[in-house]
Amino acid sequence: MQNFIFDNKTTIIFGKDTQSQVGLETKKYGKTVLLHFGGGSIKASGLYDEVVHSLKKEGLKIVELGGVKPNPRLSLVKEGIKLCIDQKIDFILAVGGGSVIDSAKAIAIGAKYEGDVWDFFTGKAEIKVSLPLGVVLTIPAAGSEASTGCVITNEDGWYKRSCGSVLIRPQYAIMNPVLTYTLPSYQTACGATDMIAHVMERYFTNELDVDFTDHLCEVTIKTIMKHTKIVLKDPSHYATRAELMWAGTIAHNGLLGTGRIEDWGSHDIEHELSGIYDIAHGAGLAIVFPAWMKYVYKHDVNRFVQFAHRVFNVDIDFNNPESTALEGIHKLQSFLSEIGLPTSLKDVNIPSDRLEEMAKKATESNSLGNFVKLHEKDVLAILQIAAE
Amino acid sequence: MQNFIFDNKTTIIFGKDTQSQVGLETKKYGKTVLLHFGGGSIKASGLYDEVVHSLKKEGLKIVELGGVKPNPRLSLVKEGIKLCIDQKIDFILAVGGGSVIDSAKAIAIGAKYEGDVWDFFTGKAEIKVSLPLGVVLTIPAAGSEASTGCVITNEDGWYKRSCGSVLIRPQYAIMNPVLTYTLPSYQTACGATDMIAHVMERYFTNELDVDFTDHLCEVTIKTIMKHTKIVLKDPSHYATRAELMWAGTIAHNGLLGTGRIEDWGSHDIEHELSGIYDIAHGAGLAIVFPAWMKYVYKHDVNRFVQFAHRVFNVDIDFNNPESTALEGIHKLQSFLSEIGLPTSLKDVNIPSDRLEEMAKKATESNSLGNFVKLHEKDVLAILQIAAE
Repeated sequence: MQNFIFDNKTTIIFGKDTQSQVGLETKKYGKTVLLHFGGGSIKASGLYDEVVHSLKKEGLKIVELGGVKPNPRLSLVKEGIKLCIDQKIDFILAVGGGSVIDSAKAIAIGAKYEGDVWDFFTGKAEIKVSLPLGVVLTIPAAGSEASTGCVITNEDGWYKRSCGSVLIRPQYAIMNPVLTYTLPSYQTACGATDMIAHVMERYFTNELDVDFTDHLCEVTIKTIMKHTKIVLKDPSHYATRAELMWAGTIAHNGLLGTGRIEDWGSHDIEHELSGIYDIAHGAGLAIVFPAWMKYVYKHDVNRFVQFAHRVFNVDIDFNNPESTALEGIHKLQSFLSEIGLPTSLKDVNIPSDRLEEMAKKATESNSLGNFVKLHEKDVLAILQIAAE
Repeated sequence: MQNFIFDNKTTIIFGKDTQSQVGLETKKYGKTVLLHFGGGSIKASGLYDEVVHSLKKEGLKIVELGGVKPNPRLSLVKEGIKLCIDQKIDFILAVGGGSVIDSAKAIAIGAKYEGDVWDFFTGKAEIKVSLPLGVVLTIPAAGSEASTGCVITNEDGWYKRSCGSVLIRPQYAIMNPVLTYTLPSYQTACGATDMIAHVMERYFTNELDVDFTDHLCEVTIKTIMKHTKIVLKDPSHYATRAELMWAGTIAHNGLLGTGRIEDWGSHDIEHELSGIYDIAHGAGLAIVFPAWMKYVYKHDVNRFVQFAHRVFNVDIDFNNPESTALEGIHKLQSFLSEIGLPTSLKDVNIPSDRLEEMAKKATESNSLGNFVKLHEKDVLAILQIAAE
């Protein structure tokens, strides 16, 4: 087990009607709030009105910035930073899913930085200070509500890049499972896949002595798979929406990675896909992760056998452990198909003509991943498997 | 699932040599430190010197208060409070196990309260402010290094009582598994039992829709049992000491209780035992918990079947689920015996002459527990089972 620091400061306020507490929570951090959100869904659902009412009740001044798109864009982040400076914003409130939260995080660090906020995403600058931010979560998926990470897409070249720091963990996350009842099936399935991928990026490690977190990872994946299947049949099932929502936070708040060297190769490869083709991140992961698994499993067959056996109850073939490992990958792909996700680039009409370009772009600064270090040729091979 | 707030502010600094960071971490919170510890073991091991060196290196002023005993006493807490006020202490550093940490927590709240600190333990006062505190952990057991709880024994009547608040979560917990190599087997086993009991107090709930945390609880218990058996044979096995230490924190930092109504009946009954007879808390739990289980299992046989099946791999007898439930309790008792703990009051030479007195005292303010509400007669019946 590696030495680690686990620093988990986000206060989770979970359950029915919790959005009414947003004003009281926000008041702890300042008087002028940037209310950041996406499209019209929070207005249609009435959530926007509830949030504004709660903030106004506590006498808070609201500055609005809507319009966050999936795979959130740098241009809107820059608009938000300007607003924060001009309007002397104390606190950023993200109402939405991972894209809105990540956009809010980028604004929060950019507003306190004199240079170009993109510097944080290229490694030119390190996060040293941030405006505080809070979240009312409407999409369980990205885990950004309690994570240290942030992913933004720069339209200039369609680079999708990440940065991270404990300083951008939200101060609080309000999580009401009822707010997720209206999520379409496809988005629910994409969210579940993102959660599972967050666990798997931690699970596939070369660290041997991580028995406790291995088991925590396995039951988290199993919980997500089980409840995704239930919720796709019964979208307004409170208990199941709640299990998914809470598991999504734990999948990515850092606990499951304690003591491990995490991988993140599949996420980085997927960022090339959704950066260029603007597909849902979860759909991209459903395509890339199994391809990555097929490419790397021989590096540590035992770990893939463990995954197959413990997560999917695959009988271990002791005479042929490779077949057990492959059966686990096959079971994961079957699950992804079952919940309606693509498992090949063909399924989302992405042609093979830019695979080389993506492989080159993904590795232009560094190799990807840790379980196996991936160079340009490896990323290309994985994308080719994904294209099959 | 119940609505919940999960507020988990303790920074965990985990791994080899981490105690050298204690000065830097402490400096964030003030200049004058109360160094609180137990007997001579930290001096014999050299840890005391390392901690003092690290604190002095950062220019911190140290005031010492040693002498904390297992089942920590109110009289020493009061001495500590006086020291804090007289010496204008900014920060309390607990170096030791749960007893030292709990003593430090009680001092931290008492130093900021004008009345009698015991008021917090009788429910007369609510914790509204606390001195900040930190921990260098030497005994994985109580989980107090990241918990909201604190248990103190009042020598006047030998009342062992608890209080709790997020305000007494330590600011940081430094956890180096190497520091636990020298723990005697009995203390290691008692610690493991305390951890398992912390999970079980959360596991046995009437809340039905807690699938995710059920699974997290189950693998946490399994991890603790597995690694306890290994470590008793090989006390200097780093990976195993690390698994136990980290599982002990997760067992009691609140995560496993999210969305649930917790029980705590067994802990409260045990407090009567260790309050009067001064036995190790873990040993008391090894006696009381199985007795509690035998008394209450009929209240929800299915939950006990789930426990037996998932934690101990007991085959489910679908024609006779009660036998499966009882087999799970039996397996737990066998495990406790195997690791060298008592499972009956007789094993620790506690006679039956004061069972009525303990049952009366335990319930004099309120009934105990939530899974089943326990009144005086119930507590007596459980103690009688424990005496068998």
